Amino acid sequence: MSVDDYAQIDFEREQRCGFPEVIYGEGKTPEQIVEIASSIIEHHGCVLVTRLADEGAAAFCQAFDDACYFELPRLAFVDRREDPVTGQSVAEVLDCPDRAEGDVVVACAGTSDLPVAQEAALTARLMGSRVRLIPDVGIAGVHRTLDHVEELQAARAIVAVAGMEGALASLIAGLVDVPVVAVPTSVGYGASFDGISALLGMLNSCAGGVSVVNIDNGFGAGQIADRINRPRWARPETD
Amino acid sequence: MSVDDYAQIDFEREQRCGFPEVIYGEGKTPEQIVEIASSIIEHHGCVLVTRLADEGAAAFCQAFDDACYFELPRLAFVDRREDPVTGQSVAEVLDCPDRAEGDVVVACAGTSDLPVAQEAALTARLMGSRVRLIPDVGIAGVHRTLDHVEELQAARAIVAVAGMEGALASLIAGLVDVPVVAVPTSVGYGASFDGISALLGMLNSCAGGVSVVNIDNGFGAGQIADRINRPRWARPETD
Amino acid sequence: MSVDDYAQIDFEREQRCGFPEVIYGEGKTPEQIVEIASSIIEHHGCVLVTRLADEGAAAFCQAFDDACYFELPRLAFVDRREDPVTGQSVAEVLDCPDRAEGDVVVACAGTSDLPVAQEAALTARLMGSRVRLIPDVGIAGVHRTLDHVEELQAARAIVAVAGMEGALASLIAGLVDVPVVAVPTSVGYGASFDGISALLGMLNSCAGGVSVVNIDNGFGAGQIADRINRPRWARPETD
Amino acid sequence: MSVDDYAQIDFEREQRCGFPEVIYGEGKTPEQIVEIASSIIEHHGCVLVTRLADEGAAAFCQAFDDACYFELPRLAFVDRREDPVTGQSVAEVLDCPDRAEGDVVVACAGTSDLPVAQEAALTARLMGSRVRLIPDVGIAGVHRTLDHVEELQAARAIVAVAGMEGALASLIAGLVDVPVVAVPTSVGYGASFDGISALLGMLNSCAGGVSVVNIDNGFGAGQIADRINRPRWARPETD
Amino acid sequence: MSVDDYAQIDFEREQRCGFPEVIYGEGKTPEQIVEIASSIIEHHGCVLVTRLADEGAAAFCQAFDDACYFELPRLAFVDRREDPVTGQSVAEVLDCPDRAEGDVVVACAGTSDLPVAQEAALTARLMGSRVRLIPDVGIAGVHRTLDHVEELQAARAIVAVAGMEGALASLIAGLVDVPVVAVPTSVGYGASFDGISALLGMLNSCAGGVSVVNIDNGFGAGQIADRINRPRWARPETD
Amino acid sequence: MSVDDYAQIDFEREQRCGFPEVIYGEGKTPEQIVEIASSIIEHHGCVLVTRLADEGAAAFCQAFDDACYFELPRLAFVDRREDPVTGQSVAEVLDCPDRAEGDVVVACAGTSDLPVAQEAALTARLMGSRVRLIPDVGIAGVHRTLDHVEELQAARAIVAVAGMEGALASLIAGLVDVPVVAVPTSVGYGASFDGISALLGMLNSCAGGVSVVNIDNGFGAGQIADRINRPRWARPETD
Amino acid sequence: MSVDDYAQIDFEREQRCGFPEVIYGEGKTPEQIVEIASSIIEHHGCVLVTRLADEGAAAFCQAFDDACYFELPRLAFVDRREDPVTGQSVAEVLDCPDRAEGDVVVACAGTSDLPVAQEAALTARLMGSRVRLIPDVGIAGVHRTLDHVEELQAARAIVAVAGMEGALASLIAGLVDVPVVAVPTSVGYGASFDGISALLGMLNSCAGGVSVVNIDNGFGAGQIADRINRPRWARPETD
Amino acid sequence: MSVDDYAQIDFEREQRCGFPEVIYGEGKTPEQIVEIASSIIEHHGCVLVTRLADEGAAAFCQAFDDACYFELPRLAFVDRREDPVTGQSVAEVLDCPDRAEGDVVVACAGTSDLPVAQEAALTARLMGSRVRLIPDVGIAGVHRTLDHVEELQAARAIVAVAGMEGALASLIAGLVDVPVVAVPTSVGYGASFDGISALLGMLNSCAGGVSVVNIDNGFGAGQIADRINRPRWARPETD
Repeated sequence: MSVDDYAQIDFEREQRCGFPEVIYGEGKTPEQIVEIASSIIEHHGCVLVTRLADEGAAAFCQAFDDACYFELPRLAFVDRREDPVTGQSVAEVLDCPDRAEGDVVVACAGTSDLPVAQEAALTARLMGSRVRLIPDVGIAGVHRTLDHVEELQAARAIVAVAGMEGALASLIAGLVDVPVVAVPTSVGYGASFDGISALLGMLNSCAGGVSVVNIDNGFGAGQIADRINRPRWARPETD
Repeated sequence: MSVDDYAQIDFEREQRCGFPEVIYGEGKTPEQIVEIASSIIEHHGCVLVTRLADEGAAAFCQAFDDACYFELPRLAFVDRREDPVTGQSVAEVLDCPDRAEGDVVVACAGTSDLPVAQEAALTARLMGSRVRLIPDVGIAGVHRTLDHVEELQAARAIVAVAGMEGALASLIAGLVDVPVVAVPTSVGYGASFDGISALLGMLNSCAGGVSVVNIDNGFGAGQIADRINRPRWARPETD
Repeated sequence: MSVDDYAQIDFEREQRCGFPEVIYGEGKTPEQIVEIASSIIEHHGCVLVTRLADEGAAAFCQAFDDACYFELPRLAFVDRREDPVTGQSVAEVLDCPDRAEGDVVVACAGTSDLPVAQEAALTARLMGSRVRLIPDVGIAGVHRTLDHVEELQAARAIVAVAGMEGALASLIAGLVDVPVVAVPTSVGYGASFDGISALLGMLNSCAGGVSVVNIDNGFGAGQIADRINRPRWARPETD
Repeated sequence: MSVDDYAQIDFEREQRCGFPEVIYGEGKTPEQIVEIASSIIEHHGCVLVTRLADEGAAAFCQAFDDACYFELPRLAFVDRREDPVTGQSVAEVLDCPDRAEGDVVVACAGTSDLPVAQEAALTARLMGSRVRLIPDVGIAGVHRTLDHVEELQAARAIVAVAGMEGALASLIAGLVDVPVVAVPTSVGYGASFDGISALLGMLNSCAGGVSVVNIDNGFGAGQIADRINRPRWARPETD
Repeated sequence: MSVDDYAQIDFEREQRCGFPEVIYGEGKTPEQIVEIASSIIEHHGCVLVTRLADEGAAAFCQAFDDACYFELPRLAFVDRREDPVTGQSVAEVLDCPDRAEGDVVVACAGTSDLPVAQEAALTARLMGSRVRLIPDVGIAGVHRTLDHVEELQAARAIVAVAGMEGALASLIAGLVDVPVVAVPTSVGYGASFDGISALLGMLNSCAGGVSVVNIDNGFGAGQIADRINRPRWARPETD
Repeated sequence: MSVDDYAQIDFEREQRCGFPEVIYGEGKTPEQIVEIASSIIEHHGCVLVTRLADEGAAAFCQAFDDACYFELPRLAFVDRREDPVTGQSVAEVLDCPDRAEGDVVVACAGTSDLPVAQEAALTARLMGSRVRLIPDVGIAGVHRTLDHVEELQAARAIVAVAGMEGALASLIAGLVDVPVVAVPTSVGYGASFDGISALLGMLNSCAGGVSVVNIDNGFGAGQIADRINRPRWARPETD
Repeated sequence: MSVDDYAQIDFEREQRCGFPEVIYGEGKTPEQIVEIASSIIEHHGCVLVTRLADEGAAAFCQAFDDACYFELPRLAFVDRREDPVTGQSVAEVLDCPDRAEGDVVVACAGTSDLPVAQEAALTARLMGSRVRLIPDVGIAGVHRTLDHVEELQAARAIVAVAGMEGALASLIAGLVDVPVVAVPTSVGYGASFDGISALLGMLNSCAGGVSVVNIDNGFGAGQIADRINRPRWARPETD
Repeated sequence: MSVDDYAQIDFEREQRCGFPEVIYGEGKTPEQIVEIASSIIEHHGCVLVTRLADEGAAAFCQAFDDACYFELPRLAFVDRREDPVTGQSVAEVLDCPDRAEGDVVVACAGTSDLPVAQEAALTARLMGSRVRLIPDVGIAGVHRTLDHVEELQAARAIVAVAGMEGALASLIAGLVDVPVVAVPTSVGYGASFDGISALLGMLNSCAGGVSVVNIDNGFGAGQIADRINRPRWARPETD
């Protein structure tokens, strides 16, 4: 099968939406991923792949020797634009000074929520935001969150990642005046119902300013945070 | 119908469980409530009725002129024991010095959760506990809870009442070393699903020490808090 | 009961979060609403009440003769700040030139979604955003949405309000480069399950940039849109 | 066990319903599948098997050397009627000119929905319909669907296959005057709940003309589309 | 408010989809319904309103003195086209000879399902189909359905309406070679969950040819049956 | 409308299933109920109506002056067979010596479950079983059930009626060697979800011999208990 | 660990409930199963084990060389009573003439439901009932069920096993005058939700006489059918 | 990554909540578990790890040669405090005389619930409670529970562990005057829905004194029972 038999790549998406089409890796063969990625790189100089399984990751890294791949968040990208975002580890990518505008904070409640938080952070970073990652600030020790109040209040957009009861989003939203994008995670067991408890908790936040994305959707939250942090109309020279 | 046609009152319950059978008012006629209550008062000198509808309350107050009835929590009791618990308002009952042992705190997240919190407080009070009620300490302004830390840490048992995301239980449990009995309420709308969101949040609390009762079950939480606060083995002279 | 018996007003919220505490009218008595509102007006010069029932609305309008009340979205406010937002109808408030910064678009799928859309629009407007409302652009006639492409692409933040399958959010998000705050509504019947179908549709949006608030939570969406549209760091003189 | 111990083949189904009994492969042993298929071929000259696992497929292909088997949609058939439908790939079968009447379009939202779409297309094709397959026309880039408007408007029946929010069915139904059979797929994660989000979206379609089959039920949709496309009463010479 | 403030009528829908926009009465004021209906009648000579509440019905009948209104199915229409469909009762409308093409059967399982069946029958009838209604043929007395086998097998399209376990759709589909559009109804109690049991039963039909619409959506099923019964390509002269 | 327009009475049901068709009163007009009842009485000399609303009951009692109607279980019947079952109260009917064979026990957990238990008891009684009713033997005072062990062990069939956690069925089934038909009731609040908790508890009974009917379906349980108690093959002279 | 550390075998169960305690194999180690089985055989001369995994089955067959084990229904038993029930295959056990009283029919809708039907049949057979098994009589070809009407009407108790929409139970119950014990199975996919669709369909049966057991609980249904078929009071000489 | 990259250990938790932070093993790498455990042991002399997978357990036992690890409940601890709790088996730990105060009873309904019961028992024991474990006292043989009445009535706190219908908690609570902490387990199949049936049963307990923790959360219940059994204010010398 050729690419046209299974995909109609949306090359105008960058024009309309500010970033090229992103490849959702799940349910695609390694060949499909590489072929679609090649087309996108050719048009846009940059491609992002999420939910990449092991085989897909191997094929991707072999096809593109400048690929950046991160195992925990199952995310890869190639950046061949001017001043590219790059790095060998999540920390390196977040510290990379190029194309880093504004101030996004990604906070997560527990160590187990880290992969989703990294997906959010890397997405926002590749799209152009400066990003800081604050791990393990769950509500069971509220002082751990309060220790970061100034950092949180200085941010332009915040992503709050949490499983179980998902209370982190409400806690943070009560402290700041910027939008909080909440990501429920499937961390938990029993009546967490693979993230439903956190999802409902976040949807019912009694604190203002919280909106929610799908369970484990770090990518989506990262993109929204980037849009909030780097609005078209406030950028020096944008499309 | 006589009482025997519809009820088999469990007169040994006080002996086994520490307090006489309590009348669940819902689905009973005013006549049934008054007849069952008369029997229980005769045996035990004291009766508690919960979920009392308007007609039932009128009949109850007419039948027992020393009845204490509270409209918001839909709860009534008659206490003819020595040193009875009594009062015209929730505050008066909670301030009544007789039969008040130990230290139970009932905290609720919002003004709308107050009826359930009052049900919990009055129940524990009637059973023998000293009770303090702290309203409106939701997570959206976390400092409001933190202002009460010492009071919370001094308690022997805590009841945390909250709707919406129900995060109050986790927040408090992270601050204290006594059991926290969490009561989800049906306060909220949309995806709160009449209390399911709060219920799930509380069941998935990442803080230790939290157990949960049914949605809006202030009575149950009050009884458990009383049992924790006034254990049989630690009372001066108990049954 | 005095205010302190049932509420602890969070007077620092404007300082922390950019707008005074908002009164959630459901489950509060008319007296409570008026007393809390008085306190907030005294401190902040402005108060917003949502989900106001008929009795509460009557009491509110009687207590504050400069109250603006809107029946369809069950929302009221008093604005005594300099250059207040005011008007007799939703259209007048949205057209009021004072304190109107930036550009928020609120779009709704059907006529039945209008009350929620109005709640979102009035909220964002009172908080300081310029707001346009586009009704009845559901997906069954996709050209109706496409007719507004330029308007949508010019906005700084978009609120998409829809019941039933809730596809409007995805449709719009595929056309723009700003965040889309999606509000599922309880409009529909049968397997719409009071808004669950729309909620799930929006959470699973295949288009980037969509985050979701609770079912029928127009207020929440309006506040988030305002935060995106008028970021602290981009305002001429902010707190 | 003989066939009679576990099955009662319905040889009159073709007479009553227009096509022989179809074998649902799941939960049947390879031997059972081959034996039942042999009986059906003997009676009808044609058999279709759906949801065929690897072992079953191997046994089927070994038993019938003219078997057509397709791995992605896990479907196989043998056609020994006059002018049989046949082909080595999905494309070849769809292009096969024999027994191809009318005009069915099967459209799917994303590359991951392709297996279900192929199941629908092959089913309708084997039953006698001419079928065209349009992949990857999801709502995130609405122009991709609009590019096919004429093709859609020319069809006699349309199958719309989509996971996640399942909005494709509504989008197409708003453009055409023929029935749209919607197939929700289990593509997605988190709050897609294995296809529930798409199922609910399609059931609540605000566009007229949409009916829905079970999640991932491409076979069922293909059969219905064939019935709509080739009605008994409009066929040249039918039973 | 003028019509433009709350509605954007889709006057091209008849052109695209074969019938003018239908008014969903729920959640609209009597004034809105009458104004929208006037516009549609003016353009198309015909309007259909579903889910019409008492007040809306009164206003509609007062505004259009040739209105046909049916209380049980809460449906009304005005038909000013040439050879209009009309009648004082459901039976009269179904017997009206004008614009009656083909053969649609609407069968329902019990007397309580009748309103939904009538909605389906009237919708298909107004759109141009000849329709017969078969009541009370539930599965508890299977002979009642079998008595109608010939009538069912002669139809071009069948609507099967049932609550509770919803087995009627499977039973009929096993007897015929035309599409069966299944309408689950909310008839039942307890674990029928307002129609979910019937909905699931119909989605999981083991008989081929069944597709499903929303719970109680007689209108949707009627429209689909009409589209199957009177296909554009088989009509003598169509739009 | 005549009866034939809305109903096809199954007069052969007594022949096939041992008792005439029973009228489900919900969703039928008083006229329909009376007309259908007249036909059934004419054929069978006996009719049973369940879920009868107030208006329907008034019409029924007016139409048949020998009607027996019971308000709590919303059930009525007319019995004009030889040796009819009759009585002014539930107790009288159960004590009526005619047509009383075998031994059915109906036990219920609480006073609020009584209406459902009465529906079961009256149904089995009218159909021909001797029935005893044991109220208020919930698990919170297990001795109340154990006091009835001999009575339970002597029965030929048992109906266990309970709401909330529904544990009564398991408790009884562990004590006897006859089938226990469990009826979950909608008694409870919060997480009882209108009977789902009791339904699930009963379906998951760890004690053998428990089968379950729909929530609040006392009628169904009574009929099954009658069938178990008075089997066709063990009756002196049956059809 | 000794048996007492993990189990308290209920040796009085045969006395109370008519058959010795049955071992639920799931979640027990092979050693535990063999040890518990040994104790039960020693006391009662007979043991039944359900839901036996491969390892458990191997250990069981090795420990008891007269064990009867059936792979498809994952069930094993040892019968050392006088006139034992025995056989090498399901058919042989059902045909075994010893201890076979009365007449139970187990019918299942499809070939995939066979394992659950066999579990029911073997259970009832071991307990003392004569059992006939009728496979593959699903509703899609209603004549297949009707061909067995006489056999069904002659039975003393019927077990109806079905997945998907589970309509078989209603169909059969409409034809007979004995209790129908319905077993929903997890056969199906998508919106069958692992048996929920069949469970709900059966609970909402519009035909009288249907009660329901847990999903896939063939054992429970077999035991109940045996109790109905061989009532204590109708047996020649019983315990 | 260093510990600070993924965790912020809450060293003040023992001070606030009475016991050091407990490590939730799921979703953490063996290295992370060992590193975090080392830090906690260093500060507190004691660490507890729950939900430890095989690899994590191996690494833990290798890192700490005085580790106590129990495979069934997947729990490990190191205790280097004065008079440490220790043992090679669950029984040995429970029999260990050091740091054993008060009286906690952990009862479970079946053998399959044992792992969760052991998690509860070991947790309470390590924290300082004397604990007795009573297995296999399910409701199907109620005498098994009643045989332990004195033991239950002597306890200071009770943990009731049960799957399926979860009735054990209600049964026990009706017999005692101390709090009963109920743990629903995922033991069961079909409509047990991985523990939901037991969870709902326990939440709806008609007996007073029952509170509930998450499904399979033996750890949480053990901690709460310890807090009830050894209250701060009743201990000889506490922190």
